[in-house]
Amino acid sequence: MNLADLPTPVLLLDRTRLERNCLRMRGRAKTLGVQLRPHLKTAKSATIAEIAHGGAKGPITVSTLAEADYFAARGFRDILYAVPVAPQKLAQVAAIMRRDGCDLKIITDNLDVALAIAEKGAALGVTFRVLIKIDCGLGRAGITPDSEALLPIAAALSKPGAELAGVLTHAGHSYHARTIAEIRHIAEDERAAVVKAAQRLREAGHPCPIVSLGSTPTAVHADSLAGVTEMRPGNYVFFDLFQVGVQSCRMEDIAVSVLATVVSHHRGRNHLLIDAGGLALSKDTGANEHAPGTGYGLVCRPGAPLPLPGLAIHDVHQEHGLVGPLPAPEGSPAAALDFAAFPPGSRLRALPNHSCMTGAMYDRYYVTENLDQGGGLAVVAEWDRVNGW
Amino acid sequence: MNLADLPTPVLLLDRTRLERNCLRMRGRAKTLGVQLRPHLKTAKSATIAEIAHGGAKGPITVSTLAEADYFAARGFRDILYAVPVAPQKLAQVAAIMRRDGCDLKIITDNLDVALAIAEKGAALGVTFRVLIKIDCGLGRAGITPDSEALLPIAAALSKPGAELAGVLTHAGHSYHARTIAEIRHIAEDERAAVVKAAQRLREAGHPCPIVSLGSTPTAVHADSLAGVTEMRPGNYVFFDLFQVGVQSCRMEDIAVSVLATVVSHHRGRNHLLIDAGGLALSKDTGANEHAPGTGYGLVCRPGAPLPLPGLAIHDVHQEHGLVGPLPAPEGSPAAALDFAAFPPGSRLRALPNHSCMTGAMYDRYYVTENLDQGGGLAVVAEWDRVNGW
Repeated sequence: MNLADLPTPVLLLDRTRLERNCLRMRGRAKTLGVQLRPHLKTAKSATIAEIAHGGAKGPITVSTLAEADYFAARGFRDILYAVPVAPQKLAQVAAIMRRDGCDLKIITDNLDVALAIAEKGAALGVTFRVLIKIDCGLGRAGITPDSEALLPIAAALSKPGAELAGVLTHAGHSYHARTIAEIRHIAEDERAAVVKAAQRLREAGHPCPIVSLGSTPTAVHADSLAGVTEMRPGNYVFFDLFQVGVQSCRMEDIAVSVLATVVSHHRGRNHLLIDAGGLALSKDTGANEHAPGTGYGLVCRPGAPLPLPGLAIHDVHQEHGLVGPLPAPEGSPAAALDFAAFPPGSRLRALPNHSCMTGAMYDRYYVTENLDQGGGLAVVAEWDRVNGW
Repeated sequence: MNLADLPTPVLLLDRTRLERNCLRMRGRAKTLGVQLRPHLKTAKSATIAEIAHGGAKGPITVSTLAEADYFAARGFRDILYAVPVAPQKLAQVAAIMRRDGCDLKIITDNLDVALAIAEKGAALGVTFRVLIKIDCGLGRAGITPDSEALLPIAAALSKPGAELAGVLTHAGHSYHARTIAEIRHIAEDERAAVVKAAQRLREAGHPCPIVSLGSTPTAVHADSLAGVTEMRPGNYVFFDLFQVGVQSCRMEDIAVSVLATVVSHHRGRNHLLIDAGGLALSKDTGANEHAPGTGYGLVCRPGAPLPLPGLAIHDVHQEHGLVGPLPAPEGSPAAALDFAAFPPGSRLRALPNHSCMTGAMYDRYYVTENLDQGGGLAVVAEWDRVNGW
């Protein structure tokens, strides 16, 4: 099958870039001396989880119980559900643990939830393995490493029905760094925060086997992970325009794209209309923080490894994408679009701003290989994804 | 089943509000003397399409061929696929027309595509019924009503294999109006543009049976649709915070919401963490154009008809939503959140900024009724949706 045979919009994935990204991150984990526990919230695919581990069903991170269920049913045995657990979800966690003999770990940062976890574990006859969430500066979830709440939560998780498995943190604020030096600084804050929390727990007599952190920018650039046992980057398997902007990768590392068709020309407004809009691409505009003018994405010719210069997806409606010239510098006339080069029916590959959000709209990947060596037009496989909750 | 029995996040729909919204729009169509052809890109549900027509499988509009296929298979016979058609999609259009004896109409605004439609229709032995897309000021797609391209496109659609079925337009720019008077002005531009195009076609000897327009704000507020045969609002079945902002509806008309669970407290940052994030709610922030501070949505207690005052979802990550006080006026201290009122495990209903985008993340509706009369806690039905392409 060829790209020309596919309906549009569909999600494309270049296996060669994926494998290269995964190999490089395994190298980073080895260099840094930590276990890699990739976050599958981005890929949501068992095939890709195995590729991330070089062929093994190794430790993984998930963002929903739908993912936990899917990966456990496919033989993954060491899974961390890394969103603070709602007490109502504990019965389902226990069911997955029992059904598949799966070490499905959960997290919390709240004393009341910790008490509820132990109580529910005792009632269900299981031992929930729990990590305490630490806030290293993102300010989304977690307690600070010096919080008074740390030891009471650890004590609650030492009751029958629960077991303290470790601590984890996530430096999501690294996404907003302007320089690699700043990312390295945030990576050190991330490391220091989670290691300090582990030390406090151990000094109080708690075992703390897992010391976990990770975001793609800090995983790419951290100088040292001394005291850390594992890292959990996720986006790196695909990368996207945001990660190019924050200097986690190069443009030619982006492994996913959306295949779209030109459906019309709007000569009055100087844009092409494509059949990939807000649903096919997502409405995430984060990439513009680092690269103003990126709009909702850049576009490539099918089979071409790099985006067409001077073009971006300026606007999206539900099923419409508007592709036009990048804004001209102040005082310059706007570039005229070469409409003849993009007749209706011609195809474009849209590079996503944020591959986690874009991927979630699709139930499968159409897989190509050797995009950088002229092989990007043949579809060599279809891989499934698990969406929803 | 009760809301407390549902996992989170899930999509809730109050049937009573839905039916009231649908009844009111049928009344508007009757008053204005036009056929209602609801746009099912919002609801993507056969059950809701029938409710929109008061129990009949009446004329509908769709935004994808997945929707066309789904509705045709469920007995809808008059369907307008209202996104400019890609030439590659014509074989699938013909297959749906033949399989179900469905009058599946398509649209274009491009001469090359019009020629390709007729050629493909002749080759396949079908007659594609085609509407010409008119731009009434939105500037997304379509030709202007006085465009030189109008008659050549009509001539191309008069060849064997095609048939000119009419003209259509969409005043999406009404979403950015600041007053109802401005919406009425845009509604009149919308009407005048599509009627003028129809007149030019008829004067040139082309039949133009369908004269179609529609957006939810203009459908709610238009003074006259003289010369128009049908209107295609879609969002009105559910409404959302954006439509409240642009004055298409009241807060108590919003029929859909996302049920979420409080999973933690972040006292240092003064927010609750809920398990509905960027995927569960969408990253559409359009509602802030009319109501700054709305963030990613407002929250209600389950079963309560109106949002809690002074709270909004300030930020979202993939599976995390951050709920906190609305920003304080300049110089005032920020309000302190009453954490005790929202213990972990408690539930909130999130009102969406844009129900079309939020709905697309779910494969079903959990249906309640009589939300405004205290009945919003019981789940009385589950209805399916068709997503993807």
